[in-house]
Amino acid sequence: MISQPDPTSVQDFAGTTCVVTGGLGFIGSNVVHALVGRGATVRIVDALVPSHGGNLRNVAGLAVDVLHAGIGEAAVADVVDGADVVFNLAGQVSHTASMVDPQQDLRLNALDHAGFLETLRRVNPNARIVHASTRQVYGRVERQPVDEETAAHPLDVNGVAKLAGEQLHMVYNHAFGMPATSLRLTNVYGPRQRLTSDELGFLPVFIRRALLGETIRIFGDGTQRRDCLHVSDVVGALLAATADTAVGRVYNVGHPLDHSLAEIAALIVAQTSSTGGVELVPWPDDHQRIDIGSFHTDSHRILDELGWSAQMSIEDGIADTVCFYRGDPWYQSPT
Amino acid sequence: MISQPDPTSVQDFAGTTCVVTGGLGFIGSNVVHALVGRGATVRIVDALVPSHGGNLRNVAGLAVDVLHAGIGEAAVADVVDGADVVFNLAGQVSHTASMVDPQQDLRLNALDHAGFLETLRRVNPNARIVHASTRQVYGRVERQPVDEETAAHPLDVNGVAKLAGEQLHMVYNHAFGMPATSLRLTNVYGPRQRLTSDELGFLPVFIRRALLGETIRIFGDGTQRRDCLHVSDVVGALLAATADTAVGRVYNVGHPLDHSLAEIAALIVAQTSSTGGVELVPWPDDHQRIDIGSFHTDSHRILDELGWSAQMSIEDGIADTVCFYRGDPWYQSPT
Repeated sequence: MISQPDPTSVQDFAGTTCVVTGGLGFIGSNVVHALVGRGATVRIVDALVPSHGGNLRNVAGLAVDVLHAGIGEAAVADVVDGADVVFNLAGQVSHTASMVDPQQDLRLNALDHAGFLETLRRVNPNARIVHASTRQVYGRVERQPVDEETAAHPLDVNGVAKLAGEQLHMVYNHAFGMPATSLRLTNVYGPRQRLTSDELGFLPVFIRRALLGETIRIFGDGTQRRDCLHVSDVVGALLAATADTAVGRVYNVGHPLDHSLAEIAALIVAQTSSTGGVELVPWPDDHQRIDIGSFHTDSHRILDELGWSAQMSIEDGIADTVCFYRGDPWYQSPT
Repeated sequence: MISQPDPTSVQDFAGTTCVVTGGLGFIGSNVVHALVGRGATVRIVDALVPSHGGNLRNVAGLAVDVLHAGIGEAAVADVVDGADVVFNLAGQVSHTASMVDPQQDLRLNALDHAGFLETLRRVNPNARIVHASTRQVYGRVERQPVDEETAAHPLDVNGVAKLAGEQLHMVYNHAFGMPATSLRLTNVYGPRQRLTSDELGFLPVFIRRALLGETIRIFGDGTQRRDCLHVSDVVGALLAATADTAVGRVYNVGHPLDHSLAEIAALIVAQTSSTGGVELVPWPDDHQRIDIGSFHTDSHRILDELGWSAQMSIEDGIADTVCFYRGDPWYQSPT
């Protein structure tokens, strides 16, 4: 189901031992599938926080070790011991949830990562670390597209906490020589995303509603623009980021083409043949107060330095995604 | 002992109720003295963390209420209730300590501030908030002087956590309309600074050693440059930052003139008539790994928008500081 990332940008993982934190979640489980397919031994750490996207079903049928724990817990030491690569994808992703419980978001996205990095420093300081950050760290930016040297002004606690988590990885790289890289991901969609939460971004909500024939509701006038990435492209970027030249670097990871939310919704409606259509609705307060407006990622740095660029168009990506969920309707109504 | 800040940049505080968190510490207690002198009713919240600079002696003789608590604690609600202005200066300032216990720094500089802002949001969302951040958020910057739109790449956990704390204030301003301002302070010196710790920056160490006739040791070759602020100028900036036009803004607060560490040490030796002199020593590992090199603050934004600029030369500032500690030798050897 997952398209292969560009093989020229992918390291060879056969025979390696990889840890994936958050490995039962959306992006994490797609990384796990890719690594297992490349011959890696994979160990997963996942806290299975109820409101997040983690589910054992996401790795069903794969021979992997799973530790059910937060990354700040002591038991993680045994999991990271001896690992060659750590994909550190654990965290809380909901912007609205971060405004309801700011301290919880800071714990999951920053404080626990400090604990995790301390564990790695003690147990396995030479492990290659790739951390997942987010374009949410930038906040609302006037000049588009947005490159990595743009000053970050996050508009919600999630952006603050993710930036802190990312910067902790860079501090541990600089101060202790631990080989870390962080990727600031744009909006991601694709197989194994939790569709049934309204808190994980607009893409899974749009896709779920269209699959169920319900009306997609767009907040505002629909002219807001975003670049979106199929998860297979994100997996490709995460694997490419294990290159030696990426150590100590932060990269934007986005798509060269952006679209309005109205265009994206119309595409999803068309590809699902949904009869629910699309309607524009007023912004709910809790979303509007942290809205960043239009955002287009400038991904030139990762193209120039690592040779990565998005391979899948949004048309192909949505088609692949719809096909996956049609074949696994559990995702639309999990027990 | 404290010079008056420029009166044109200072609001009138007579009859107001002000809360100063970290009010028993170095900068906090100087703010408390200034506010009491201007007729404000002052309430202090201070956790008196042993390794920090807080001491009841710093406010001896002043009629102020003191709550001995961390800013994240529930009891703080009663203190902030009804306050007009909150100077939120509590935090951990040691860069090296932040690398020994990263989670503690994140708790004190970020997580507890989220708790504090939640308390304010619940109890007194209209209170004017001025938060103390630090130029440490920038990390090592090639292009000097450094303005506020420079991307932050902190080199130590303290810089990461302080940036998160600052950004939380901006998030609460943007999302909930709470009138907050944050000031990124450069190296600060002056009366009521704890001299007996080696963890609070180079200035108090240099001053203590010179006062005791001991040799000042400079790490490296002494060519590294910094701009330094007398605490009276910082107090002036903090009071000026209560202006309505400062809401939602982040300002650099530094001195227009910078000096090499060798020049600063020589000045301190001269003004103390110390016979200990100055020597250059190799960098200790724990300092070198988080060293940011030379740094010169660009403070044009706060000058343009609030009319604040540093008033005291380093020569006058060191003279004032030496005079204070000669008159209160307790600071050189506290019990």
